[in-house]
Amino acid sequence: MASLVVLYKTPKDTAAFDKYYVDTHVPLAKKIPGLRKYEISKGTVATPGGPSGLHLVALLQFDSMAAIQQALTSPEGQAAAGDLANFASGGVDLLMFDTREA
Amino acid sequence: MASLVVLYKTPKDTAAFDKYYVDTHVPLAKKIPGLRKYEISKGTVATPGGPSGLHLVALLQFDSMAAIQQALTSPEGQAAAGDLANFASGGVDLLMFDTREA
Repeated sequence: MASLVVLYKTPKDTAAFDKYYVDTHVPLAKKIPGLRKYEISKGTVATPGGPSGLHLVALLQFDSMAAIQQALTSPEGQAAAGDLANFASGGVDLLMFDTREA
Repeated sequence: MASLVVLYKTPKDTAAFDKYYVDTHVPLAKKIPGLRKYEISKGTVATPGGPSGLHLVALLQFDSMAAIQQALTSPEGQAAAGDLANFASGGVDLLMFDTREA
């Protein structure tokens, strides 16, 4: 399997972010081909030492890194990526990697 | 469910990191009470734009944020956390949050 981890830094207006994310971005992201699982953080994103500076984390699972790369270049992936600018006003980092059981 | 995401920045000696991580840290981390699933990145941690600056990502799953907090304060959790200084020479960030299906 492989994971795409999306780290959303705290935006200016968290209520507007949450509404847009649920109403608009999630439906777009769910159309991405090859998406096997899509989880998001619920509530605070914390660190052992205190606040993380992140507002939301999304964990998307695919079959492989190749599948993620295909997904991101698909029309649906491009639409979801292009939508980030519409709400991720605090900035966003994407990480992608193959995974294995430890 | 809840996730503990561990982001290891690229260390000085990646081969030494990998050996220590597999031989010593994974066995310690697997003893943490309440750990339901433990996945790690395999190969490069990439971003759509290029290198991420991260060498390894670990995704640990627990029942809840409360379970993560209990796990981190347990003797086994303290041992695993204390072990980070022995190999995570590039620095490490821990993120923890409850999760739900998007």
